[in-house]
Order: sequence, then structure tokens, then C-alpha cells
Amino acid sequence: MSQMKNAIVGQSGGPTTAINATLAGVIRGVAKTDQIGTLYGCLNGITGAINDELIDLSASMDDGKLALLKHTPSTYLGSCRYRLDKEEDLARVVETLKKHNIGYFFYIGGNDSMDTISRLTAYAGDSGIQFIGIPKTIDNDLPVTDHCPGYGSAAKYIATSVLEIARDCYCYSTPSVTVVEIMGRHAGWITAASALARTSYSSAPDLIYLPERDFSTERFIADIRQALRRRRNVVVAVSEGIVVPQYDDDCGTRDVFGHRQLGGIGKALTDIVKFYIGCKTRSIEVNVLQRCAAHLASKTDLDESEAIGKAAVQAALAGETGKMMVYVREEPYSVSFDCADINGIANLEKKMPDEFISPDGNDVTAAFINYVTPLVAGEAYPLYENGLPVFLGR
Amino acid sequence: MSQMKNAIVGQSGGPTTAINATLAGVIRGVAKTDQIGTLYGCLNGITGAINDELIDLSASMDDGKLALLKHTPSTYLGSCRYRLDKEEDLARVVETLKKHNIGYFFYIGGNDSMDTISRLTAYAGDSGIQFIGIPKTIDNDLPVTDHCPGYGSAAKYIATSVLEIARDCYCYSTPSVTVVEIMGRHAGWITAASALARTSYSSAPDLIYLPERDFSTERFIADIRQALRRRRNVVVAVSEGIVVPQYDDDCGTRDVFGHRQLGGIGKALTDIVKFYIGCKTRSIEVNVLQRCAAHLASKTDLDESEAIGKAAVQAALAGETGKMMVYVREEPYSVSFDCADINGIANLEKKMPDEFISPDGNDVTAAFINYVTPLVAGEAYPLYENGLPVFLGR
Repeated sequence: MSQMKNAIVGQSGGPTTAINATLAGVIRGVAKTDQIGTLYGCLNGITGAINDELIDLSASMDDGKLALLKHTPSTYLGSCRYRLDKEEDLARVVETLKKHNIGYFFYIGGNDSMDTISRLTAYAGDSGIQFIGIPKTIDNDLPVTDHCPGYGSAAKYIATSVLEIARDCYCYSTPSVTVVEIMGRHAGWITAASALARTSYSSAPDLIYLPERDFSTERFIADIRQALRRRRNVVVAVSEGIVVPQYDDDCGTRDVFGHRQLGGIGKALTDIVKFYIGCKTRSIEVNVLQRCAAHLASKTDLDESEAIGKAAVQAALAGETGKMMVYVREEPYSVSFDCADINGIANLEKKMPDEFISPDGNDVTAAFINYVTPLVAGEAYPLYENGLPVFLGR
Repeated sequence: MSQMKNAIVGQSGGPTTAINATLAGVIRGVAKTDQIGTLYGCLNGITGAINDELIDLSASMDDGKLALLKHTPSTYLGSCRYRLDKEEDLARVVETLKKHNIGYFFYIGGNDSMDTISRLTAYAGDSGIQFIGIPKTIDNDLPVTDHCPGYGSAAKYIATSVLEIARDCYCYSTPSVTVVEIMGRHAGWITAASALARTSYSSAPDLIYLPERDFSTERFIADIRQALRRRRNVVVAVSEGIVVPQYDDDCGTRDVFGHRQLGGIGKALTDIVKFYIGCKTRSIEVNVLQRCAAHLASKTDLDESEAIGKAAVQAALAGETGKMMVYVREEPYSVSFDCADINGIANLEKKMPDEFISPDGNDVTAAFINYVTPLVAGEAYPLYENGLPVFLGR
């Protein structure tokens, strides 16, 4: 009998509310099979494999801890933003994997992390090690999969926040324009979810601007004037990735993946309103809570995120490698799991399709509302002690 | 038999998560007695009484709506920031009250609203109308009362947010300093509550700066250097009201009450860290959700806020006027209600006492933790439909 192989799991990229639910799913999936030995956790993303910094997850987790882990935001194992593109680093990763007799490598992350899976598969595909990516990104911008783990919770947080911010705005009788700046570099998925905030008594967000459409300052001013004729307190949702022509000073810094570091669009838009219209304005930058507010997670998102982790273990046992796990949507709403070639996913971005954006380019469509509504369904409250949520610390 | 008097209730100042719970309490209190006729709602604070813009709350509310109202953030009746200091306005208010046969005037608000109650009592004290203030402020800065309705929910929101932000910070291995800017012009109560975020695995906030202490840039730099020696990712909680000497450009605008409009202290502090220490920094301004995040309200706060509204009706029926309702703390923790002379409260601010601030001036004490802990206890989840909270619209 050949020696039983071990497995390793890592987390990478920006934190989300659901990435630890997926980790819990991988841990439960491995615990359930007798075909995998020890499950190691790779600390701080791929750098943990480069530097041989692993912890034994099989020994340190029990049911109680896994229940807490599912509701714990950000990355339990730590993260990194590190491009695995040096031959030397690839060799060191494979050396670590061989040293620990690893047969299965699971990596939970977004576009850049799928690039890591793609490179590892190409470099070590004949080593007998199987490489499986599991999606994770609030940006919801990975191709093939219907949606991404973490997106539903971000969408729920944004919609709830915009609803509560709108209530805050509506209490004064002075006309005002409030601009809510929301994450999303190239894709407007998170910003678009703000449309769920609309109720019978609140029209906020009155306007939605997405990076999928070119931004026109003239059009924006006309939109705001029209909205102010209909209501006293106008609320605008805008993606951080919008480029305002006269504010595009191109002075932003870039991260190690060459992405521009954005911010300040809310300020730019309120400056425009102040200058051309002159009413009271407020710019609100929704902070990192949109990716780590476990206190307001979507139950659908956490449950699916855990299940896709378990499904990844099944896929690996079935012999898959060089793949990313994907959600397949079924109607009435449910998801099943499949896996797709990593090379059709890594480094590609899924933007919002035309049918989800209104013809005017300043709103979403009913088709998008139908798409996003089931993803925010259900509340997944963490355990509270003394009034504060209890998370799993490492 | 003399004609039965009616009552009126208004809301004023900045929104809170709990001000509508107090409104629900007043409505329930009036509904319970047969000594008061109709309860009117005064729209947009005192300006509704000046302009005779009232709604009939007795006719429009039922048990189901009151249950929703308790969990609805911001002001159901609208608000204002208007100083009632003109003889002409006082006369118009009294004219409106007489026109509607008002015997009881309830005003839910903060320092400035208590000034309104004080002026009305002085102006119309012999008219037979009784004036009762009910405290409301996330700032927790009203004297006499043990704490203020709305503060417990703000404290819970801030502590939970700092805990989740800390998790977000801890996931990267690069040293960093994150500054979280929190509301509070002259009193540090809300910022201080961030100390509740500390757990066995997270020391955030590592430093807390309150407006009750003069800020020293030199001391701040030394504090940060020391904290960075102990841990990789340092989290700082700071009140918006802190004045950094070299950044005090005095260019802030002022509101109608003469208060400086503040903001930007987080940016100032991260600029200092970047310049003198040079590590990665992030500034997070917690937005208006700290005063209107009904999705994360404190059950203790909402229950007490409703009860003090009912108690105000009892106090009015007992003949009180020119008073503000106060919480009296009992041990083990519970509150009872009393009322105190409005002139010992209006326009006064209760800052954090010395025994709640550490000798070094960069933290809080165990005595403060004992004070604040019961105020955030319990979760008061709103009703959810389709994944979003349901609030009462008007």
C-alpha cells in the first residue's frame, strides 16, 4: 500500500467575511475521508509554503472551533499579496510540499490566487500533487462561477448600510446629496447590490454609478439635478473604480500586482455637486467592514462558502487538478458545485453584463435584482458574549 | 370636568439608533393612560411646533408599527438643528400648543434640545403646559443621568467594528498602523468604548486618544514606536475632537450652534506616522453607521430607551415640568428613572471623569470597562425580510 498523502490549505488576497467558512469546509471535508492524512494550514498565503511555515489543522480543530471559525471574518491562516512568478519560489514551494508528503493543495483566493494555482499546476503538474483553487472575493469578479464566496455577505452589508445611511439623511429638511463610495476597482458588483436598499418609503440609492460604464460629469450633474427635483435628500452609490475625467490625475500608487490604489471618488463627486449645484453634500467611504463585517453575514453565503470547501476535497479525491471550484445556479435558487480549468479563470475579470445595467448607465436592472436577491438571504449571527461577537483567534 | 389635555412629542439633533425606541415608549405611555387625549408628533423637531406641522400619533400607531418603530434608526418624526432663541419663535410654539390644547410637551434630544426645553419652560411656565426633556445622544455627554439613550448601541457598534477591523489588519505580515476615527467632539465616551474590542487574541485598540486630554505629537510617536515593538499591526482609536497642534489650522466651519465641524484627525495621525516612522498606515473614519446601525443595536439600550419614554409620561402625569428624565444606575446593574432640573443640564457637557482615563492618557481604566460593559449587553436584531432589515417608514 502506498503511503497516504497529506493535504495543505492556504488563504490569500484581501479578507472576506466568508473565507474562513470555506476553510472550515476544507477541514471538515478532510476530516470526513480516510484517504487523506494530515491537513496542514499554510501561514500567510503562499509565502507560508515558500518558507515552510505550516500548522497542523487536523490536530488543532474540533467541532466547537469549526463552528466559531465559520463566523470568523478575515483570514484565520493569515494572507499575503505575493506573485508566485519566480522559478526559485516555485521550487521552494514544491520542496515544502514534498517534504510534508503533500498530495493535495487547496488555495482559497481571488484572481491573483488563481494565478498561483495555474503556475503551480504548470510547474509541478507531473509531481503527483493535485492543485485546486477555491474562489473567494467580495468583488464577485471571477469568471465561470455563478458568484463568488464572500460576495453575498458584502452585498448584504452594503445594502443594509445604504438603507441605514438613507434613514440618517432623510431626517433633515435641508436638501442634500450624499455620495456613498463602495469597493470595486473594475467591476461594479458590490456597488450594484446597494439597489437592494430600496423600500416602499426610501428610494436610496437614487443613482448608481458602476465602473463598467464611462463616467460623464455633465451627465452626472444632470442626473443629480433631476433627482433633487423628485426628492429632498438624494443618495448616490458609486464604485471606487469610477474615473472622473477632470479628477483623473493619475497620481495613484500601484500595488505589487500593478493594480492602481484607488480612493477619493466620493470626495470628487461631492466637490462637483458643491461647485455646480451648491447644495449640502456628504461623502461616505464605506470602510473595510464591507469585507469583514461578520456581524451582518449572509447565511446563504456562509453556508455555500463552507459547502464549496467540502466539495473541493471531494473534487481532489476524484482526481481533479489545475481546477477552480465553481457554483452552478439552479432554479428555484440553489447551487451545485463543479470545477473548471484554472487557465480559463486566472487573471481574468468578470464584469457586470449589459443586461444587469440600465440603458442610462446610472442604475441596475430587474434582472440584476433577481440575480443578487437570493445571495443575501438569511442572517448568520455570530455567537455573542458580553455584547460582543466571539471569533476564533490563532 | 375640565377638558382633557393633549400631548406632543418631538425629536431633535443628530439621529441615533435608539431615539425611535424612546418615541415608541412615549406613544405606549400615552396609550396606557386615560388622562391624556391625543398624542401629536411634531415634525422636524421644534420647527414643526413653530410652523404647526403635526401628525396624529394616537390614530396612526398600533402594536405592530410600534414594534417596528423600536428598531427603526434615525428620527421617525424628522429632526432639526434650530436654536429656539427668538421671542417670535417662542410665541409661535406656544400658540401652536394652545391651538391644539396641549398640556404635555415631550422633547427627545441632546444638549441643544434641552436648551429648547429650558427656554420653553421659562417662557411658558405659567401657561399650564408641562415641558419634559428626554435624553438622546450617542455622545453620552448629558450631565446627571448615568448614561444616555443611544450611547449603548453606538458603543456596541464601535467595539464590534474595531474588533472586525483588527481582524482585517492582522491578516497581513507587513507592519502597519491603522487609525480609527470615531465621533465625539468634546467627550471621548464613544471612542473609549472601543476598548471592549479587546480579546485574548487581539489587543486592538492598542492606544486610545480622547479629547479630555491634550494631545502631544511627541508622545504619540513614542506610543506608536513602543506599540510596534510589541506587535506587528497596531490599531489606534481616536476621537474626532482631538486637536493635533501642527494640524490645528482652524479652518473648520461651524454649525448654527457655533460648534466646529470636525474631521480628518485620522488622516493627520497617519500622516505623522508615515513621516516619523515610515510604516504602512491606514486611516478609517467610521461613518454615520455608528449612530444609526440598527442592525447592531444593544438590547439593553433599546429596552431602556423605550422605558424612559414611558417613564417621561408618568413624570408628566405626576406634575413634573422643566425637567429632563435621567437614568439612575443600581448594582447589580439595572436602571431606575428620575427627573432632574433642566437648568442643571441644558448646555452643559459631561466629559469622561479622570478615573475612567489611564494615567498615561492613552487608554481607559478598568472602572470605565465596568461602567460601559452592561450598556452594550444583548442583541436587538430587527426583523429581516429578503435579507434586509425592515424599518418603519413615514
